[in-house]
Amino acid sequence: MGNADFMNGESTHRAAVPPPQPFLKSLQNAVKETLFPDDPLRQFKNQPPGRKLILGLQYLFPILEWGPRYSLDFFKSDLVSGITIASLAIPQGISYAKLANLPPILGLYSSFVPPLVYAIMGSSRDLAVGTVAVASLLTASMLGREVNAAENPALYLHLAFTATFFAGIFEAALGIVRLGFIVDFLSHATIVGFMAGAATVVCLQQLKAILGLDHFTHETDVVSVMRSVFSQTHQWRWESAVLGGCFLFYLLLARYFSKRKPWLFWISAMAPLTTVILGSLLVFLTHAEKHGVEVIGHLKKGLNPPSIMDLAFGSPFLSTAIKTGIVTGVIALAEGIAVGRSFAMFKNYHIDGNKEMIAFGMMNIVGSCTSCYLTTGPFSRSAVNFNAGCKTAVSNIVMAFAVMLTLLFLTPLFHYTPIVVLASIIIAAMLGLIDYEAAIHLWKVDKFDFFVCMSAYVGVVFGSVEIGLVIAVALSLLRVLLFIARPRTLALGNIPDTNIYRNVDQYPDTRNVPGLLILQIDAPIYFANSSYLRERLSRWIDEEEDKLKSSGDSNLQFLILDMSAVGNVDTSGISMLQEVKKNIDRRGLKLALANPGAEVMKKLNKAKFIEAIGQEWIFLTVGEAVGACNSWLHTYKPKPATDETEKWSNNV
Amino acid sequence: MGNADFMNGESTHRAAVPPPQPFLKSLQNAVKETLFPDDPLRQFKNQPPGRKLILGLQYLFPILEWGPRYSLDFFKSDLVSGITIASLAIPQGISYAKLANLPPILGLYSSFVPPLVYAIMGSSRDLAVGTVAVASLLTASMLGREVNAAENPALYLHLAFTATFFAGIFEAALGIVRLGFIVDFLSHATIVGFMAGAATVVCLQQLKAILGLDHFTHETDVVSVMRSVFSQTHQWRWESAVLGGCFLFYLLLARYFSKRKPWLFWISAMAPLTTVILGSLLVFLTHAEKHGVEVIGHLKKGLNPPSIMDLAFGSPFLSTAIKTGIVTGVIALAEGIAVGRSFAMFKNYHIDGNKEMIAFGMMNIVGSCTSCYLTTGPFSRSAVNFNAGCKTAVSNIVMAFAVMLTLLFLTPLFHYTPIVVLASIIIAAMLGLIDYEAAIHLWKVDKFDFFVCMSAYVGVVFGSVEIGLVIAVALSLLRVLLFIARPRTLALGNIPDTNIYRNVDQYPDTRNVPGLLILQIDAPIYFANSSYLRERLSRWIDEEEDKLKSSGDSNLQFLILDMSAVGNVDTSGISMLQEVKKNIDRRGLKLALANPGAEVMKKLNKAKFIEAIGQEWIFLTVGEAVGACNSWLHTYKPKPATDETEKWSNNV
Repeated sequence: MGNADFMNGESTHRAAVPPPQPFLKSLQNAVKETLFPDDPLRQFKNQPPGRKLILGLQYLFPILEWGPRYSLDFFKSDLVSGITIASLAIPQGISYAKLANLPPILGLYSSFVPPLVYAIMGSSRDLAVGTVAVASLLTASMLGREVNAAENPALYLHLAFTATFFAGIFEAALGIVRLGFIVDFLSHATIVGFMAGAATVVCLQQLKAILGLDHFTHETDVVSVMRSVFSQTHQWRWESAVLGGCFLFYLLLARYFSKRKPWLFWISAMAPLTTVILGSLLVFLTHAEKHGVEVIGHLKKGLNPPSIMDLAFGSPFLSTAIKTGIVTGVIALAEGIAVGRSFAMFKNYHIDGNKEMIAFGMMNIVGSCTSCYLTTGPFSRSAVNFNAGCKTAVSNIVMAFAVMLTLLFLTPLFHYTPIVVLASIIIAAMLGLIDYEAAIHLWKVDKFDFFVCMSAYVGVVFGSVEIGLVIAVALSLLRVLLFIARPRTLALGNIPDTNIYRNVDQYPDTRNVPGLLILQIDAPIYFANSSYLRERLSRWIDEEEDKLKSSGDSNLQFLILDMSAVGNVDTSGISMLQEVKKNIDRRGLKLALANPGAEVMKKLNKAKFIEAIGQEWIFLTVGEAVGACNSWLHTYKPKPATDETEKWSNNV
Repeated sequence: MGNADFMNGESTHRAAVPPPQPFLKSLQNAVKETLFPDDPLRQFKNQPPGRKLILGLQYLFPILEWGPRYSLDFFKSDLVSGITIASLAIPQGISYAKLANLPPILGLYSSFVPPLVYAIMGSSRDLAVGTVAVASLLTASMLGREVNAAENPALYLHLAFTATFFAGIFEAALGIVRLGFIVDFLSHATIVGFMAGAATVVCLQQLKAILGLDHFTHETDVVSVMRSVFSQTHQWRWESAVLGGCFLFYLLLARYFSKRKPWLFWISAMAPLTTVILGSLLVFLTHAEKHGVEVIGHLKKGLNPPSIMDLAFGSPFLSTAIKTGIVTGVIALAEGIAVGRSFAMFKNYHIDGNKEMIAFGMMNIVGSCTSCYLTTGPFSRSAVNFNAGCKTAVSNIVMAFAVMLTLLFLTPLFHYTPIVVLASIIIAAMLGLIDYEAAIHLWKVDKFDFFVCMSAYVGVVFGSVEIGLVIAVALSLLRVLLFIARPRTLALGNIPDTNIYRNVDQYPDTRNVPGLLILQIDAPIYFANSSYLRERLSRWIDEEEDKLKSSGDSNLQFLILDMSAVGNVDTSGISMLQEVKKNIDRRGLKLALANPGAEVMKKLNKAKFIEAIGQEWIFLTVGEAVGACNSWLHTYKPKPATDETEKWSNNV
C-alpha cells in the first residue's frame, strides 16, 4: 500500500464526498430518524386500503391482533396469574392509597378500570397495571404542600383526580408527538438512586403506623422524620410495633424463600393477602383496635363512582395539579416503560415505546374520570405476573374482575385490617427497591454514574423527592454536555508491522512516526467544543515540538487529524478547522485529514475547506496519510534523512 | 492479513484493554482535562520559589510581563491608535449611554476607568475597552421593566451600577472557577442571529431621535415600535429627519471607502467625531435646538465621582439587578472574548480565556464603584484599534487619558451636539453588525445552524432580546442533546481490493460481505441513546434479514459493530450492549466488535462484557473481524458454500 512517488493517486484511496441530496429529502430523513426511528408505518406499505384500516385499528388496539388467536390454554395460565396478582393488588392498592393520603378504597378502584383499558390498548403481555409507591408519595408531597388532605379531603381528592388527568394527557401527548425519548434522559443510574431514595423515604413514613403515632411530620426528609419520631418516644405503642415487626419478618421470609426457589414465587405473591387476613382475624378476635392498633375501618361497597365532574379545572390550585401530574406522569411512565421492555426482552417480543405511552395515557385519562388515581406498570406486580406464567394482557382483565368482586361483596372484610399490616407490606415491597448491588456495580464500572446515583439518593433522602430528581437529571445532562464540551484528543502511533494506527495509551507498544503528529478527535466538532479543541490542538503541537526539541529529533512536519470519530461538524467547527489550518501553516507545518465521514465531507466541501486544505491531503485511512506524508518529506524536503525516516517511508 | 485457520491468534491483532489506572489519578486527569485543558501551571514547573512569585504576578498582571520590554517605537504606534479610538469612544460612549437610558456622561466615565484596569490585567494587545450597544439596550429593557428611568432616575442609576457590579463578579467568578467554557455554548450561529436582531432593534429605537418624537414605546419589538411610530405621523419633525439622514449618509460613505481601501481606516474612525463637531457647529450657528432638534445639553465637568455607596444591595429590586448583571455580563463576555481571540489569532499570540474573564470582571467591579456601567471589548472599536496599528494595551491608556482630558476641559463643547447625530452614529455602527453574508454562509453549509440563527433573529426582533437569546441557546442545546440522543448507525461495506470498510452511502462502490452486517455507531453510547440504539440495531437486523430473504441470499450470520467512533460508554450503554448480545444470540447470530477505544474497553472489561462476548470476538479492525468471521463460517458451518462466500473468505 506504500506509494513511492508522491501523490500518484493510484494506490491511495480518496475520501469521498457523498452524493448531494436535495434539502427536503435530507430534512425528511433527519425528521424520520429523530422521531420515527422504529419506522412504525413499515407494515402499512403496499397494502390495500381495507387491510390498512384493519392494521391501523390493530396498531391502536393490540387486543384486535392477539384476541382472535386467543386459546383456552392461554386462558388457564392467565386465570392463575390474574388471581395471583389480584391477591397482591388488593392490599398493595389500599396501602399505596394511604401513602398518597387518599381514601383507601381508591387503591381498589385503581386496580379495576385502568387494567381493563390497558388490556385493550397495551402491547406488553406481562405488565400488570396498578398504583406505585413513588408516584403515590410524590402526589402526597406535591399536592400536600398546597392543600391539607386531612383538613380539606374533598378538594385534595379532586386535585388528585385532576393531576391524574393531566398525567394521562401528558403521557399520551408524548406518545402522539413521538417524544418518548424524553424518558430516556432518566438514566439507569438516576433511576437506581432515585428509587432507592424514594424507597427509604417511604419506609421512613411507615414509622408512623409501625409506632402507632398520631402526629407526624409532613416533611419527607430523614432529618424531619427522625426528629418527629424521637420527639414523641412516650407515644410509641408497643402493640403496634410488635405486630408490625412480626408481619414484616414473615413477609421478608416469604420473599427470601421465593427468591431462593423461583417455583415458590406464589408464597411471596400470596404473602401480603395472608398477612392481611391473619392481621384482620387477629384484630377481630382480640379487639386490638381498642388497644392502640389502628384499623382501616369502613370501606364503601360498590364499583367506581364516576369522577369526571370532580376534575378541578377551575381551581386556584390547577397549576399545582398540572405540575404534579406532569412530574408523577413522567416518573410513572419511566417505570412502566422500563418494566414492559425488560419482560418483552425476556420473551423476545417487541414493544413500541410511543404506543405504550399512548396506552398509559389513555388508562390514566379514563382512570381520572372513574375515581382512580395515577397507575402504571409496577415492577413488583409485573414480576409476579410473569412468574405466575401469564400469557397475555387477559391476566389484567382477570385481576380487574377479582377486584370488582371484592368491591361488590368483600369490602366489609377489610374493616378490621390493621394499618400496621399495610405498613409492613409497604416496607417489605420498598426494601426490594433498594438495589445496593446495582450501586456497587455502578461504582465498579463507571464512577460518574455512581456519583449521579448517590446524588439522587442523597437528594431524595435529605432533601425531597423532587430535589433528588432534579439533581440527578441535571447531573446526567451535565455529563452529556461535558462530553460534548470536552472531547478527548488522542495521539495515535503505529502498531508494529502493520499499517494500523491506534491510541498510544491503549496500545503501549505502538511507535511514533518521526516528524508526524497523529491525533484522533473523539467527538463531533460543535460550537460547544470548538474553542476547546482549538486550544487543545495547539497545546498538542506545542508539547510535541518541546519534546522533539529536548530529544534533538527531527522537526515536526505534519499534523494528521484522524476524523473517524467525528460524526458531524457545524459552522463553528469548520471555522475552528480553518483557524487550525492557518495556525499550523504559520508554524510551517502541513495538515492532513484521515477518514472524514459523510456529513463532515459534505460540510467541509460546502465551506470550501477541502479546497483550502487540498483534496490530495484528505485520505481514507491514517496509514495512507502517513505514507503520503513520508513520501512528501522524502521528495520535497531533501534533508539529512535519518535511518528512522528512511525505514518509515519504506515501511508504509 | 487473512487467517486460514480460525483464530490462530498470530496474524490478527487483539483490541487491548488499557493498563489500569488508580481511581484518584484518573479523577485528577479528568478534572485537569475538563477545567485546565490549557495547563496554565505548565510554566511554573521546575522553577525556584522567587521566580514562581514573579511568574504568578505576571500571570495575574500581564503588564508586568510586557511592560519592561516596552519601547518608544511601540509608544508611537499606541499613541496614534489610542487617539483614534478616543475620537470614536467619545461620541459612541454618549450614544450608548443614551440607549441604556443613563445620563450621557456615563459613557465618558466608562471610557476612562475600565480601560486602565484592562491595560493592567488584560492579555489582549488589540482589544479596545468600551460600552456596547447590545448590553446597553439589554440594561434598558431589563431594568426598565421594573423601574422607570424617567420617573426615578436615581434608583435606575443605582440599579445600573449594581447590575454592573454583579456582571463583574459573575465574569470574574467564571474565570476563577474556570468555567469559561459556558461562553462556548453561545454558538457562532446564535451570535450572528442575535447580534443582527439586536442591531435591528437598536436601529428601530433610533427612530425616536431621527423623527424627533417626544413619546415612544418602551417595548423593543418591531410591531410595538412601528405602531408607536405610525400612530403619531403628525409629530414627525422634518428638520431632525433631514439632519439625521445626511449624517447617516456621510458615515456610511466613510465606512464604504475605508472598507474598499483599508489604509483609509482613519476616515471611518474619525467620522463619528467629525459628525459630532459638524452637527454641534450647525446647531450652535443655526440655533436649531429651538426648532425641534434636541441636543445633549449640559454635561457635568470633572472626573468619575465614586459610586461605591450607590450600589443598591438593600434594594427590593436587587434580584432584577443581579439577573440583569448576569445576562448582560455573559453577553458582554462572549463578545469581548471572541474579539480578543480573533485579533490574537491574526497576530499569532495566545489568549487565556479564563484569565480574560477575570480581567473583564475586575474592570466591571472597579467600574461599578467609579460611576461606570457595563464595559467589554466592542468589535468596532477594537477593529479600529487594530487597523490603527496598536502594539499593546497602552493604546487603552492613551484613550483613557484623552477621555480624561475631555472630561476635565471639553464637556461644554458637547452642549449643542444634536441627539439625532448620536442616533446616526448608532445606526451606522449597528448596520455593520447585521452580517447577512454570514447568514447566507450558514444556509449553505449547515441548515440547522441557519435555523438557529434565524430563530434568534426573529425572537429578538418580534419578541424581545431575552426571548431571542433563550430561544437560540435552547435550540443550540437541543441540537447537542439530539446529537447524543439520536446517533447515526451506518452500514459499512468493503472498498474493492482493500481491507478497508467504509460507509456504503458515502462510498457507493463498496461491496457487502455476504452473511455479515457491519454497522458503525457514530457516538458514545449513553443513557440518552441506549434505548434508541437497541431499537435501531434490531431494526437494522430485521431489514437486513428481510432483504436477504427476498433476494434468496445466504442467511445473516454475524453482526460486526465498528466501535471506532464510540468515545465512551456508561452503564446504561453496557446494559444495552448486553441486551443486544442476548437478542442476537436468540436469533442465532454472532456478535463481533471492532476497534473499541480505551475507555470502552476498560468499562466493557469491568462489566465482564468482554468475557460474555469472548475476547476472541473483539478485533482491532473491521477487516480482521470480517476475516475471522468468514474463516469461522468456513470452518464451523459446512453448508453449501456459494461462490460468493468462497470468494470472500479467500479475499480477506
